[in-house]
Amino acid sequence: MFSSGPFEHHVVGIGNAIVDVLAKTDDAFLERHNLVKGSMTLIDAEAAQTLYGEMGPAREISGGSAANTIAGIATLGGKAAFIGKIASDELGEIFAHDIRSLGVKFDTLPSDVAGPTARSFVLVTPDAQRTMNTYLGASQALSPVDIEEVLIKSSLITYLEGYLWDPEDAKQAFVKAMDIARGAGRAVALTLSDSFCVNRYREEFVGLVENRINILFANEQEISALYQTENFEEAVKHITGKVELAILTRSEKGAVILSEDGRIDIPAKQVTVRDTTGAGDLYAAGFLYALTHGFALEKCGKLAALCASEVISHLGARPEADLKEFLKDLD
Amino acid sequence: MFSSGPFEHHVVGIGNAIVDVLAKTDDAFLERHNLVKGSMTLIDAEAAQTLYGEMGPAREISGGSAANTIAGIATLGGKAAFIGKIASDELGEIFAHDIRSLGVKFDTLPSDVAGPTARSFVLVTPDAQRTMNTYLGASQALSPVDIEEVLIKSSLITYLEGYLWDPEDAKQAFVKAMDIARGAGRAVALTLSDSFCVNRYREEFVGLVENRINILFANEQEISALYQTENFEEAVKHITGKVELAILTRSEKGAVILSEDGRIDIPAKQVTVRDTTGAGDLYAAGFLYALTHGFALEKCGKLAALCASEVISHLGARPEADLKEFLKDLD
Repeated sequence: MFSSGPFEHHVVGIGNAIVDVLAKTDDAFLERHNLVKGSMTLIDAEAAQTLYGEMGPAREISGGSAANTIAGIATLGGKAAFIGKIASDELGEIFAHDIRSLGVKFDTLPSDVAGPTARSFVLVTPDAQRTMNTYLGASQALSPVDIEEVLIKSSLITYLEGYLWDPEDAKQAFVKAMDIARGAGRAVALTLSDSFCVNRYREEFVGLVENRINILFANEQEISALYQTENFEEAVKHITGKVELAILTRSEKGAVILSEDGRIDIPAKQVTVRDTTGAGDLYAAGFLYALTHGFALEKCGKLAALCASEVISHLGARPEADLKEFLKDLD
Repeated sequence: MFSSGPFEHHVVGIGNAIVDVLAKTDDAFLERHNLVKGSMTLIDAEAAQTLYGEMGPAREISGGSAANTIAGIATLGGKAAFIGKIASDELGEIFAHDIRSLGVKFDTLPSDVAGPTARSFVLVTPDAQRTMNTYLGASQALSPVDIEEVLIKSSLITYLEGYLWDPEDAKQAFVKAMDIARGAGRAVALTLSDSFCVNRYREEFVGLVENRINILFANEQEISALYQTENFEEAVKHITGKVELAILTRSEKGAVILSEDGRIDIPAKQVTVRDTTGAGDLYAAGFLYALTHGFALEKCGKLAALCASEVISHLGARPEADLKEFLKDLD
């Protein structure tokens, strides 16, 4: 699937550089603000100010979908890099500190032209679901010049989040990274990110998934949105044979891995869910770490499920436990 | 103890306006940086940058000793106000948002002359102890002009943290607030904050405690430092009769309340400790809420212990649970 020639990073992630602003809330608050539970909605600076003014006390934890995955891979002990745009402000410093402190290479130059560092207001309801409202700010300034050719070529896998398709310049950066990686015989992995995101760009995503990537991560809602069906097994039929490796996650129902060698069903790990933020991101972290370390697919799925179970057991989308412990549990 | 004439706030707190930057660490890290476990050390901008650069990924949660207490009182349903200095930056916005979103009146004008908003690097070791390194920044700009006379007079209790004695202008603000409150027949409460802080200003603190305040909060180490003894019961003898009300906390050994009516011993609530940050702050919150709502002293101590037990059960010094539930448990 990917050239195993000399490499410096197991995975380079490209995504929006976001600090999460997490607050507990209730269903009434979501209704009052017309927020769809479980979704990610993009908001402008004014809406961000209004929402922040009305929500309760919060905590700030570095986030961003691909960035969470990269943080997870680094925590597992993998060599990882991240490309994403912050502003030169305090939230940008927080984002940069948190990811670099894990040993992740993160050198993207900050930019102040598109606004302050991106923030996502993550509202967690008592059912542990998270509803996100994201002000992209500086993230929108990510552009093709930020994609370092050498970095992409020296990474076994380039991992992209579907959310990057929202800001126009970031989309161009996404395409550039994909082209470099494939040209170098490396693999490209994509997560569909969110069913609403899939609906915004469905046809483009079908083209990407079926023709330009090697590895697809999608949850049940996302793959169903991609193929406009409400039946998961029907979506499975659609995707089968269209991409080298598809990892379809179904929350407590586990995951389905589709490859040339057929289908593998992996059960989920039972855990008390406190906040689902980052579940898919850490699932991808476990999977990609394992895949780039030569684990069999079933073992990739098991490590992925363990990493996802850790992140949903607490508030925030970055791991709190030492994920390396899970590597021992696998044997 | 305090005039129960018409009032607008149960408690006004005055303290350093700080955002906590919390990270898990190990004993080796503390040793490498010559940090004394359990202490609060003041650091300058350069040391702050060095420490931050070397510590692991963190999360940002509003903090500040008196501010935590005020947040707790508001969460219990009390009417509370806070005076403290932030800068006009993103951490300042976070601090202001978090405290105002609880219904706390917080109108102190931001100032950028003394640096960015204060931050405390809170290092939590596996034994759940917290070691703090605080860069005071904008907090040092708190001065007597920030003490609104009307606000102090309209509050039953003015609550001050010993940490305020560090920045020179804040000390003057502290004295002004104390004078206004006493002049208006209201009560002044003080927490000694930290045994190292007590050692820095021991004689001044003895003067304050014995002559100018009504209510004292101190833990075992602080009261022992104040009276230079290693024997708690000896410290109790020293303080008995010197202040109208003394509340001495002893972690898992519970608390001792000293008043005109004698001594009351209150057991601690047994709980799994995850992070001791804010234990004393939330203890004071429960106690002051109860005291300003006419509860008997023993009940004040019980509510205080419940509030402290909540905050040490998770990372961060602000309550996560609805403390109002504890009011039901009291009956």
